[in-house]
Amino acid sequence: MGERIHATYWLETGDDPARAAEVIAGEQSSGTFVALATETPELKARAGARVERLEVIDTSRTPSLPTPKQASVYTRCVLELSWPIENLGACLPTLMATIAGNLYELRAVTGLRLIDLQLPPSFAAAYPGPAFGIAGTRRLAGVAHGPLIGTIIKPSVGLSADETAEQVRALIAGGIDFIKDDELQADGPNCPFENRVRAVMRVVNDAADRTGKKAMVAFNLTGDLDKMRRRHDLVLAQGGTCVMACLNSVGLVGLLELRRHSQLPIHAHRAGWGYLSRSPALGFDFAPLQKIWRLAGADHLHVNGLRNKFSEPDASVIAAARSVLAPVMASAELPAMPVFSSGQTGLQAHDTYAALGRADLIHAAGGGIFGHPRGVPAGVEALRASWQAAMEGIPLAQQAQRVPALAEALEFWR
Amino acid sequence: MGERIHATYWLETGDDPARAAEVIAGEQSSGTFVALATETPELKARAGARVERLEVIDTSRTPSLPTPKQASVYTRCVLELSWPIENLGACLPTLMATIAGNLYELRAVTGLRLIDLQLPPSFAAAYPGPAFGIAGTRRLAGVAHGPLIGTIIKPSVGLSADETAEQVRALIAGGIDFIKDDELQADGPNCPFENRVRAVMRVVNDAADRTGKKAMVAFNLTGDLDKMRRRHDLVLAQGGTCVMACLNSVGLVGLLELRRHSQLPIHAHRAGWGYLSRSPALGFDFAPLQKIWRLAGADHLHVNGLRNKFSEPDASVIAAARSVLAPVMASAELPAMPVFSSGQTGLQAHDTYAALGRADLIHAAGGGIFGHPRGVPAGVEALRASWQAAMEGIPLAQQAQRVPALAEALEFWR
Repeated sequence: MGERIHATYWLETGDDPARAAEVIAGEQSSGTFVALATETPELKARAGARVERLEVIDTSRTPSLPTPKQASVYTRCVLELSWPIENLGACLPTLMATIAGNLYELRAVTGLRLIDLQLPPSFAAAYPGPAFGIAGTRRLAGVAHGPLIGTIIKPSVGLSADETAEQVRALIAGGIDFIKDDELQADGPNCPFENRVRAVMRVVNDAADRTGKKAMVAFNLTGDLDKMRRRHDLVLAQGGTCVMACLNSVGLVGLLELRRHSQLPIHAHRAGWGYLSRSPALGFDFAPLQKIWRLAGADHLHVNGLRNKFSEPDASVIAAARSVLAPVMASAELPAMPVFSSGQTGLQAHDTYAALGRADLIHAAGGGIFGHPRGVPAGVEALRASWQAAMEGIPLAQQAQRVPALAEALEFWR
Repeated sequence: MGERIHATYWLETGDDPARAAEVIAGEQSSGTFVALATETPELKARAGARVERLEVIDTSRTPSLPTPKQASVYTRCVLELSWPIENLGACLPTLMATIAGNLYELRAVTGLRLIDLQLPPSFAAAYPGPAFGIAGTRRLAGVAHGPLIGTIIKPSVGLSADETAEQVRALIAGGIDFIKDDELQADGPNCPFENRVRAVMRVVNDAADRTGKKAMVAFNLTGDLDKMRRRHDLVLAQGGTCVMACLNSVGLVGLLELRRHSQLPIHAHRAGWGYLSRSPALGFDFAPLQKIWRLAGADHLHVNGLRNKFSEPDASVIAAARSVLAPVMASAELPAMPVFSSGQTGLQAHDTYAALGRADLIHAAGGGIFGHPRGVPAGVEALRASWQAAMEGIPLAQQAQRVPALAEALEFWR
């Protein structure tokens, strides 16, 4: 086929960087710790990973990660490797073992972070990508323009199915577009999935019958595969329009199988993202990883939000959101929708819109909606008015003069 | 049910540790960033995570992980939390979101590592655990006592199916017990799974017909679920006795479904373990994680090896191996077999045996076998003789006087 997979890393090494790059390329393809007669030049030319680029950034006197192999200086570089697709085929699980397998454990490595991934067209031929993406989500949610204004059921766990439905009733009465379960709430005995879906969908369907607008509810069906399938079927049968799964809980095969089965958009939660990303010298940027999840079928992908309550910096949030809105590859866009949440209010609308240049996203606010002195309807109105202002280039203060709910919201958002 | 799940963390925080502990407990159960009227005392008592233990270890002037919330001092503690099983039920995927979800991203957290996990009996009732474990593996491999002497096909990728079978022929002629594919080698066009299995199993079956002993070959079937099932069925039909999957590539649902389908032991590779563990202030110890993989069905679990070629320290290797040999819980042992590899020779046999007190393990050596001047049979003999000495309390040098292959091996192992 002649196609190659390209992965780019931030690398820190106490070795000569060129030698470290070769060790990594070897470990992840035909090489090993000792020279083998069977690794012939022909075999290496055919199956070896290739060092495509190695650019030194800077150096450090101390290693970012512990290693038994001490050095006097540690060099940071950008390292791009490539692999022939003939090594693995267009297989996402084996891709993970290839680009993100043993290499993180090498002694020569005192820092390694996957920062970019370029996949050849075979992967788009082998994997379907999101079934709904932006257009399908907008159609099902009945939101043609602007962000989906959303929220998360709180408390995360502890409400009964009926209490959850009551909260949904208030949110829908307030005009919300999108509601999601918390990632902790799947099918616990305190709030069984089936009871919750039936209770919530009664409320959703009643409102849709009255108003013609059906709020999208992402029911968290995370679990074993047979249960995920049954839960999906229940949501579908009850007229639901979205299911949610925790990516790092179900894994790639879980998402792939859900995509294969699902007739609804898949809201992909990345709970656990911190352990994959929180050390700057280890793990993953979101941009390369989200390509894999999108190929596997994620329609919506969480990216935190600007000035969020977690530790992720704004630059990382925006880079993540841009990556979700960018094509997976030139020949296959596979559009998906970024989901902004955590400490969000209308105050982030202008900056978010300015950074992305578009509003194909879900903006989920909790306290920013519930905290409004005139309740949920005014909270939703204020958040929507903020986005309208952002998209029309109107300053927020000016918009607040026209929209009392926004003026009131600005009092407690700040 | 009254059962609770207990997870213990190494925590570093710039906050007051007691407050940080409550924030973490809240984020992972009924709390959120703002106080909610709906989080009633009754709800919190029912669904809230509980701080069971908080012990300060030491302090640091600098945070281990970056945070926007600076402090003058960062306190390291052991934090034990517990959750009522009613929150989630006995569901491994939601367990992951609960014990290893958003909490890693909290601002108050500048270091967080899961170091222990105690699960209630419901999990053992809901999940089958390894189908073969130690006893089943010994039976299928025809090794009643001592370690399975093993190796890994090298080069990892690049050999054709027939070349792989030729390597297997030499290994089996040399008396090897166990052979595994590399984690990079699954079903690439260069060495298709079906061709490889058919070619290798011809060799394995021929030898078994002649000698009565069938070497166990762990074929790496990692991939999409339908393909993993078909590959498993092929291995089974060809008389194979083991399949291998990369845990972090297929995820929990992948392993659970493989376990549900498989009639063979599952050799679980942990490629990617580095990104989950390499920062001491982030991620996971292996002990808690391997409980989840064992409940999900892993029969063999990789643990590196003493004085390995990677960066993992010996203490971590032994802790991991001991955890695999320890019961998952008092009421459900779910025995599995640790797999030692990376830079292994007979030189590690005594220390490994001394640390574990038993030899229910797979000891995989590459160069330590292939490098023997008299070839694979002498390499296997030397490794086996080392273990025999270790188990019988005979010094290696003394054993070498009785076993010429070992005496020769000692020349190149050192």
